[in-house]
Amino acid sequence: DGQVPVEDLHDPFENDPRRDKRLHVHTSRPCNAETPTEGLGAFVTPNDIFYVRNHMWVPSTSESDHKIVVELPDGEEKEYSLKDLKDNFESTTVTATLQCSGNRRKNMTRESRSTKGLQWNVGGISTSEWTGVRLRDVLADAGFPVDEYPDEVRHAQFMGAEAYGASIPIDKAVDRRGDVLLAYEMNGKPLPPDHGYPLRVLVPGTVAARSVKWVNRIVLSEDESSSEWQQRDYKCFGPNVGGNPDWSTAPAIQEIPVQSAITSLRDLSPHSQADRQYLRLHGLEEDSVAVEGYSFSGGGRRIVRVDVSADNGRTWHQAELLSDKGKGAKAWAWTRWRWVVPRQQAGRWFVVKAVDEAYNTQPSDYDSNYNFRGHLTSSWHRVGYRPPDV
Amino acid sequence: DGQVPVEDLHDPFENDPRRDKRLHVHTSRPCNAETPTEGLGAFVTPNDIFYVRNHMWVPSTSESDHKIVVELPDGEEKEYSLKDLKDNFESTTVTATLQCSGNRRKNMTRESRSTKGLQWNVGGISTSEWTGVRLRDVLADAGFPVDEYPDEVRHAQFMGAEAYGASIPIDKAVDRRGDVLLAYEMNGKPLPPDHGYPLRVLVPGTVAARSVKWVNRIVLSEDESSSEWQQRDYKCFGPNVGGNPDWSTAPAIQEIPVQSAITSLRDLSPHSQADRQYLRLHGLEEDSVAVEGYSFSGGGRRIVRVDVSADNGRTWHQAELLSDKGKGAKAWAWTRWRWVVPRQQAGRWFVVKAVDEAYNTQPSDYDSNYNFRGHLTSSWHRVGYRPPDV
Ligand SMILES: [Mo]
Ligand SMILES: [Mo]
Repeated sequence: DGQVPVEDLHDPFENDPRRDKRLHVHTSRPCNAETPTEGLGAFVTPNDIFYVRNHMWVPSTSESDHKIVVELPDGEEKEYSLKDLKDNFESTTVTATLQCSGNRRKNMTRESRSTKGLQWNVGGISTSEWTGVRLRDVLADAGFPVDEYPDEVRHAQFMGAEAYGASIPIDKAVDRRGDVLLAYEMNGKPLPPDHGYPLRVLVPGTVAARSVKWVNRIVLSEDESSSEWQQRDYKCFGPNVGGNPDWSTAPAIQEIPVQSAITSLRDLSPHSQADRQYLRLHGLEEDSVAVEGYSFSGGGRRIVRVDVSADNGRTWHQAELLSDKGKGAKAWAWTRWRWVVPRQQAGRWFVVKAVDEAYNTQPSDYDSNYNFRGHLTSSWHRVGYRPPDV
Repeated sequence: DGQVPVEDLHDPFENDPRRDKRLHVHTSRPCNAETPTEGLGAFVTPNDIFYVRNHMWVPSTSESDHKIVVELPDGEEKEYSLKDLKDNFESTTVTATLQCSGNRRKNMTRESRSTKGLQWNVGGISTSEWTGVRLRDVLADAGFPVDEYPDEVRHAQFMGAEAYGASIPIDKAVDRRGDVLLAYEMNGKPLPPDHGYPLRVLVPGTVAARSVKWVNRIVLSEDESSSEWQQRDYKCFGPNVGGNPDWSTAPAIQEIPVQSAITSLRDLSPHSQADRQYLRLHGLEEDSVAVEGYSFSGGGRRIVRVDVSADNGRTWHQAELLSDKGKGAKAWAWTRWRWVVPRQQAGRWFVVKAVDEAYNTQPSDYDSNYNFRGHLTSSWHRVGYRPPDV
């Protein structure tokens, strides 16, 4: 799993770039690598440590050669070069978090039982400022009636140059407030090769597997993508369902549920000058523990509360939510939070859970939310704590 | 709480209607009454047993006298009679479930601790086919640019003839796929007095408290409604927060989280002819238990899976989802489900939890999701079972 058979002498991975050494690599062919802790502490992740989740190789394509074809429901096609997109459509920037559906799978394996897939810890998630043109505008230009389309057009399928494919519901594709982009920049720079250079789809609030990289074809259809990543694989089943399910009985993952992780636990001592200042900001003078992390919910649903516990969920407090401002019509980016608690109150386990604006919550236990593929692990994140040897 | 002081000789409740005897009455002045089990088993609730949640009296108003005023951000007003609405706008029918934010509060009190508010069991929820005109169309007619409105217009406030008020985000109010109505019919009949005759707002996927009844004024504003039901009261806090919170720190409830309840547990015996037939449909020949209930999620998010357990959550099965078809752009109505399990597998507690299309789940425990007002109780619903004396 994760390895693609290489069946001829030509190495399809020959175009893969060198990667930053700080990434935590799960597999290199295809590349699957986590954002390190330092990247999880920033609101916007630096491009070179944005997590990488490739299903195959990085295809060879360039800004001057790349074309994208839009196929309308009646079969008519319209082709755009990168230059066409940049010259003829208004550019937009959206701050959006992408999360791999396998993020925190390792937590599910540890707290429940074996899961099938790469064992991502909490770094299968990153945030970027994406710049591109609105898919809605391009579809309208191609002749699709974006506000009054017929009922039988139900999905927008995306094909990548390497062979990956996926789809999203048409109403998300054309939603004025959906902020779906054909993106060519991350944080003001051209997309890095690993992230879809020269063009990718960006579907905010939706599992990253639908933000197809190296996109060169869009098909508006009655049907979802026929790819295995749409029809199988990226789906969740009940805790009782084994490894050979009827895949058609579960929906393909699109919007994702409310999620949180602790990314840092740090001892603070009043004997350190730097710590003393930070402690004072929080009204404390004693040995303490600083806790930081992220919370995020799909569908543009804002995080409204983060509950943290220093005693494995017996008692709760509210973390301070950082006021980072993202761009876009909805809350497409994660919320960073922090909490400082006197060490005297710190038990063996720190725990976090969040609430989104629809008052959706995270489940406490892993067993009753287990799914054999370990997708969308979002039970309470629990991190062990040991006081420093004094 | 629940009682309104009557300070003069005129009885404001004199216009309150007689109610169906089958409703489970919590308070009568104002009327708060639950739908009985028979109403929870139908996809569409009969009008006379739709749950009643009145904050005050039923105002005296008639179809011929009733007017509604739309106040635009610049202060300009436009008035419509019922006849204007019916004559000049296309009518639409939407199948939508409304749920009181206090539904299942009694469960939270029992499983965690004391909560402030009426102790609704599982019947503070009902479903209807609502007919009316689109709020979007009326606002457009009144001169509001529904697709390109300025950023500073953020809320649509609604005022009821009795004095109640609430608001919803403007993007929900004008969303083409939001199905917000000015409704004048329930299940093909004029609204009953308890449900807003002659006109109410219907906000599908949103807590019922925003579907203002007897509506006579709409104000488009930068601000939410200033009513206590918007600014206080209908908000949730952390499990650690007591009865005197800083209300401004929590958002007013709008979309609601995924929810489920068991509405019926019934013993089936192969010695009864009727039961035998039902058992056979489920491939069973032995003494069994039939379980039925509803699941629902806010925001039009479809229910994709219902997990049921006959042993207090130790092992899980998937319930059969009934294929009722509602009208409207999204899944605004509840999903009915059923399950039949051999009595031999039935333990002391039956449990249900559901998953919506964003793969949001219900929390298992009540303590860590406790809020002192007992709003939006959605932890696993647990019902005791006793086998019949044989
Ligand atoms: Mo993924
Ligand atoms: Mo309510």
